[in-house]
Amino acid sequence: MPLSKRSQVDPFIVMDVMEAARAAEAEGRRIVHMEVGQPSTAAPLKARQAVAAALPHDAMGYTVALGLPELRAGIAALYKRWYDVDLDPARVVVTSGSSAGFLLAFTGLFDPGARVAVAAPGYPSYRQILKALALTPVDIPTHASQGHQLRVADLQHQQLDGLLVASPGNPTGTMIDKPSLAALADFAQSRDIGFISDEIYHGIEYDKKAVTALEVTDRAYVINSFSKYFSMTGWRIGWLVVPENHLRSVERLAQNMFICPPHVSQLAALAALQSHDEMQENLAVYRENRRLMLQGLPEAGLTQIAPPDGAFYIYADISEFGVDSRTFAAEVLQEAGVALTPGLDFDPIRGGHTIRLSYAQATGEIIEGLRRLKQFMHNRYV
Amino acid sequence: MPLSKRSQVDPFIVMDVMEAARAAEAEGRRIVHMEVGQPSTAAPLKARQAVAAALPHDAMGYTVALGLPELRAGIAALYKRWYDVDLDPARVVVTSGSSAGFLLAFTGLFDPGARVAVAAPGYPSYRQILKALALTPVDIPTHASQGHQLRVADLQHQQLDGLLVASPGNPTGTMIDKPSLAALADFAQSRDIGFISDEIYHGIEYDKKAVTALEVTDRAYVINSFSKYFSMTGWRIGWLVVPENHLRSVERLAQNMFICPPHVSQLAALAALQSHDEMQENLAVYRENRRLMLQGLPEAGLTQIAPPDGAFYIYADISEFGVDSRTFAAEVLQEAGVALTPGLDFDPIRGGHTIRLSYAQATGEIIEGLRRLKQFMHNRYV
Repeated sequence: MPLSKRSQVDPFIVMDVMEAARAAEAEGRRIVHMEVGQPSTAAPLKARQAVAAALPHDAMGYTVALGLPELRAGIAALYKRWYDVDLDPARVVVTSGSSAGFLLAFTGLFDPGARVAVAAPGYPSYRQILKALALTPVDIPTHASQGHQLRVADLQHQQLDGLLVASPGNPTGTMIDKPSLAALADFAQSRDIGFISDEIYHGIEYDKKAVTALEVTDRAYVINSFSKYFSMTGWRIGWLVVPENHLRSVERLAQNMFICPPHVSQLAALAALQSHDEMQENLAVYRENRRLMLQGLPEAGLTQIAPPDGAFYIYADISEFGVDSRTFAAEVLQEAGVALTPGLDFDPIRGGHTIRLSYAQATGEIIEGLRRLKQFMHNRYV
Repeated sequence: MPLSKRSQVDPFIVMDVMEAARAAEAEGRRIVHMEVGQPSTAAPLKARQAVAAALPHDAMGYTVALGLPELRAGIAALYKRWYDVDLDPARVVVTSGSSAGFLLAFTGLFDPGARVAVAAPGYPSYRQILKALALTPVDIPTHASQGHQLRVADLQHQQLDGLLVASPGNPTGTMIDKPSLAALADFAQSRDIGFISDEIYHGIEYDKKAVTALEVTDRAYVINSFSKYFSMTGWRIGWLVVPENHLRSVERLAQNMFICPPHVSQLAALAALQSHDEMQENLAVYRENRRLMLQGLPEAGLTQIAPPDGAFYIYADISEFGVDSRTFAAEVLQEAGVALTPGLDFDPIRGGHTIRLSYAQATGEIIEGLRRLKQFMHNRYV
């Protein structure tokens, strides 16, 4: 029974770091986790209370495939509150996390062999999900000088069937501004190709507001999630906004591919929408962590960093130290007890001299991690 | 922005029935739901208690992609208890319902264009998920006289890359016996093609025990779920057992396509495994419902039925009444207030003269539904 060709997706390089960290912890070492891509906080209190209240009396069977109507309405209302965009709840598809959003978007838009542009560095699973669906990811190298975001000029000479943008991006936390996003949407429209905007880190933003693709076009698939800002990663609940004329097809795909998103998580998400204050408290922690990182990393000698506009990551260039990122990550874990992510997961070509540091954990962890990094760097490289 | 070709999957015919039932209920009519494919009961009490206990203190972030180790071990132990099969927990992949199991299995085994045999009648989403993944479902017509199960003789002259069996089957509830299952596994092995066994209704069985593919081969993808026997449809939690040498590839697919199954549902599932007595109480209800159906349907004139070995469905042939199944379902809903599923969803060719009746609801509903069906049939057809 042979495996398919498309099942041969790349492994995550960071898994080696995580396994080594786990082994070190099993031996009693204390590890600071700057490799993780999720909040350490639980779902909002109101979300957990809503689940607790529903458990005794709600059978929580299948919902309709597109999700609970009141949740779709609540998500649409968020677009009014966050961006002053009027969004018809009928265009909102509740999904099992952004993962299901990608599966639906890629399946809805692309046939086998289709070429889809993604930024490098970028979220590793873009490439791997595309490959698993027999599609061809087209890595477009971006540069720190342009905020690591795609530009129309980099796409003009590419043969493309689709284009995926992410703002704030992972691993960089950098945003794309409204004129640039509009230019990319126009480019996609002029070519009549699929346009997907990953907005999963919206809400976690510092000096400026993130722009949704819906501010510049209705001709986009917008992917978002309750995972990051709403701190609900493990609940696997997110959403997808699709153009009105794609809705029936996406609904049928969702019915067949997923039946429905988890009912319990939909109830939790509905209550999470009412948790503004708690989310702002989490955001204040990320803001303080970011301040500490932007101060502490240069003190550790890691000066080749761009201040992130959003999310909870910093992407650092370590080429000046003459060590590849995999070795560097292994050294930092071994000698300093700090886990971080080698850039190779985000950029298979150039990620050998970059690392991603997450500041999603509690502030005490960030302080300890920075202390260890400084000591390590001064002992070894600076 | 064009939709893909593969997004053009078939609509569910039953959706029209469900929408008409919803409209009737909105007007105040009482409808008996014999169209639904899920228990009316909630998750087991212990499952809900486990979630309630975890909510205050467990952050419920991402788990590892293959699922909580203790849940994988618990599922493996179920194979010992149910079938006396020793299963290495390492081969168990926890999934977001059987839906994710199918996405993983089909992606892991088949490249675009691959031809996969499925029984007609069969679960509609087999065909649609295959199409969405750019694969080719090959409908193999089965017959009541052979228990509506695939036979090697029907496959010999087919060009195939894979084979999917389901026992007990949906919509028929009929089982495949061990020698026939072994023959199908041997056939798949002799051709070196993918072999998938959908065992989602195991545990809901009446006069004989369902046979797992793992009793006859290790060279199979086995799909199961907490949805049916464990009454947890909306929780979207299930599992997939894969051959040992496929595990690393399936793990990478799962990491990228799903990140992990819902954490909260994994906690619930772990406790559900300890709910034998409650599940047996549910089973006693299905058993009584089945008895009532097998007695009542012939009294209503619906005599062309095969007694189901498992699950909670009866597939009936209505060709003697000279009406197509879509019209029949609309009439029964309109005149008798009973919702049922036209066979076209399960068998696009021959389903025009079959219907599926579910007896998953409470016994009182089944009694009322049968009373209405008898009256309707005697007024109209018998």
